[in-house]
Parts: sequence; structure tokens; C-alpha cells
Amino acid sequence: MKILITSGGTAEKIDQVRDITNKATGRLGQVMAEYFLAKGHEVSFVTSKHGLVPQAHPKLTTYPITNVQDLLDTLEPLVKNHDAIVHAMAVSDYTPLYMTDFETVAKSSDLTEFLQKSNLETKISSHSDYQVLFLKKTPKVIGLIKTWNPSIQLIGFKLLVNVTKKQLFEVARDSLIKNQASAIVANDLLEISGDQHLAYMVLSDGEKMASTKQEIAQLILEHLERGHND
Amino acid sequence: MKILITSGGTAEKIDQVRDITNKATGRLGQVMAEYFLAKGHEVSFVTSKHGLVPQAHPKLTTYPITNVQDLLDTLEPLVKNHDAIVHAMAVSDYTPLYMTDFETVAKSSDLTEFLQKSNLETKISSHSDYQVLFLKKTPKVIGLIKTWNPSIQLIGFKLLVNVTKKQLFEVARDSLIKNQASAIVANDLLEISGDQHLAYMVLSDGEKMASTKQEIAQLILEHLERGHND
Repeated sequence: MKILITSGGTAEKIDQVRDITNKATGRLGQVMAEYFLAKGHEVSFVTSKHGLVPQAHPKLTTYPITNVQDLLDTLEPLVKNHDAIVHAMAVSDYTPLYMTDFETVAKSSDLTEFLQKSNLETKISSHSDYQVLFLKKTPKVIGLIKTWNPSIQLIGFKLLVNVTKKQLFEVARDSLIKNQASAIVANDLLEISGDQHLAYMVLSDGEKMASTKQEIAQLILEHLERGHND
Repeated sequence: MKILITSGGTAEKIDQVRDITNKATGRLGQVMAEYFLAKGHEVSFVTSKHGLVPQAHPKLTTYPITNVQDLLDTLEPLVKNHDAIVHAMAVSDYTPLYMTDFETVAKSSDLTEFLQKSNLETKISSHSDYQVLFLKKTPKVIGLIKTWNPSIQLIGFKLLVNVTKKQLFEVARDSLIKNQASAIVANDLLEISGDQHLAYMVLSDGEKMASTKQEIAQLILEHLERGHND
């Protein structure tokens, strides 16, 4: 199979020196890539600058990206020629629009004016005691994948923090349906530390549990191999 | 000499999964530490999670930190028992206070209410098209160093983006006086790429130029050794 993995986390620029980043080491993506390669599959690996990368391998190609727009531009052509995608990257929900001092915002009579602005300065100055950053929602990358290639097998991820299993599974199942995913791997940040990594592969008819990154990689590959018809 | 180096960049939490980070690889700090150690000095190395670290050495101690508060708590006792500090870390000017949807902010009659709030949720939800993040200025770490230890030799850094030499030197000299630094190393992001790294050591009576990270390390060490009286 030709498997596409996204790993690590995006970074959205506030200015030339500041970013909003998502916490993600890329360790799970690395483990999955190395496991899929060891099982004879071809892997395309899309990751961020600081993300961990798999060991070099003749069947591995790596694509570095920075922000959500860059991810979209890189993924679209790749999604069209792969059998499966494991979309594990932590993608920023919002991207910075404009940052200014609190006083300027407080005296405005119509805050929508700030949604049209963008910072011209390359490094936003820092004299005011308080600042305000306006952000705009980014496109939902996972929702575009099946529109680019309806026959690709999609494995999505859902990371929540400190929720019940019931809530976690509900949110994952909503994502499964909405994004036409084949499975959603749901996990809670409080249950991840190093290689100990509790995760649940949520399918339309049940869940399967894994307790390490290695087991997650195995569960996903078994699922993909079952769903692959050639 | 006992030399303290800060390197890399701080990360300020928006919530459990999102941070505001400063672009900094920690490469310069790494080069300086290895050079100072090779010249027989003792090095304490304070850096962020993703910062590059020097090779292990019997005279090297490393202190990992995350945000500005953590940096302050770690530095204060260290500053008191070192001969010199080279403060190269990119420190966040602002730290997140509160994030909420644009509509909530737009209909408020007094925006100062948001400066008193903090997010109780562990992962801020992402339904609104626009969000607003309120931020508060962080303490200026460089300004505290000589108050903790008036006899420490302080080398500060100033990174600007796309400015004239005149502007760069003025801003550096202001910092030199204000923070009672022994020198400020001034650089422009546009003049840094990989090991090519133009920088100017700004002193009260002139500037000295370096064009690689290795040369910056040499300039700084010569300066520190000249100023050290034992």
C-alpha cells in the first residue's frame, strides 16, 4: 500500500519571530512510519520543522511543512495518489490575523475593523501592558481529504483533555461520520506520557484499545490492510 | 570562569495543547557553550525543550525550562553564583491571559473584564469563526539580572527584523544602558541563515562585528575574559 502519514504540529505566524504552535513531538507518526515501512509498505511522511522523523528508508519520502495553508497545498496532490492516509498531525484551529495594544482595541466602536487588518511591521513592538490578538478559523483539513480522493482510506485522530470515555467516543464518532473516516483514533492528553499512550480506535460499530504507540501502529495497519482490496 | 548561558526560546501556554513560541533553534547557544567549555570554562546552560543542547561535558550542567516564569525561577539562584551570563534566549514579551470567541468580546461594554479572566477549560473549543486572545506583558528578564547580582558580567542580545544599522545600534545601546549590560549583541533576522550569522557586539564606545556563530562565541569570550579580574 501507499500510505500517507501526517505527523507533528503546525505553526501559525504571529510575526517573523513569534508563532502559535501545537504541542506535538511527532513521536507517534515516527513509530507508525517505521512500522509500516518494516511491513513492506511505501510511506509519504508530512511533518513540521520540529517533528521527529523516521529513519531513512528507500520507500520513505518526507515532506516538511510549516502552517495550515502549507499543509493543504502539500496534501492535496498527495492524497490523490495514495491508498490510505493516517492524519495524526496536530493542526492549528486558528491563525493570527492582527495584533495590537489593548488601548487601541478598547476605544474602538466597531471591533470588526480589526478583522480586516494585518500587521505591516515585521516584529510587533512590545510597549503596551496588554495586547490583543485577533484570530481566524483555519480550514478543517480532515474534512477535505475525501473530497480530494473519495476512495482513500482515512484514519483521523481526536485529542481531547481530561474527558470521560463516553465524551471521547461521542466526539470521535461525530468526526468519523462527518469526515467519512474509516476510523478515528481517540486519545486523552492525560493518558499520554512517553511511550505509554492509551488510545482507542473508534469504528462505526465499536472501539479497540491500544496502550503504546507501537500497538497503535499495529492496530491501524491491520485495519488498513483489511480494508484494502488488491 | 563560571558562565551561565540562556539559549533557545520560551513557550507560553494558551491552553494544554497550544503555545505561543519564539523562533529560536538554540544553535548559537550550543556553539557558544561548546566553545567556552573547550577553553576550560564551566558552563551552566538554561534552555527550552526544543532547544539544541551542547555535547555532554564534565563541566557542563543543563537546565531545561518552558515559560518566562520558569525561566525567572531557574535563573535567579544561578545568576547569584556565576561570573558571567550570556542571555541569548528569545523570551516571550507577552503571555496569554484569556481566549474567547469574537462575538463575546464585540458585545462587551468594558473590555477590561477580559483581563481578569482565565480559561477554565483545558482545551479551548473552536466553533466560532473568529477568536480573540488577550495577552499580558511578561517581566523583562534581562532587567532583573544585575539586581540579583550586581557584579555579574551581563551580555545581552537584541534581535530586530529588517532595520538599518543605525536603528539596530541605537536600540542595542539603549538596552546596554538600561540593563547595565557589559555588551549587547545586536543582530537582524534577515542577516541570519544557518551558520552565516552577522552580529555586532555593541559596547558603550563602539561595535565589533562577527559573521559566523563561531566568531560571535569568540568575540564574547574575549570580552568576558578581559572584564574578569582573577
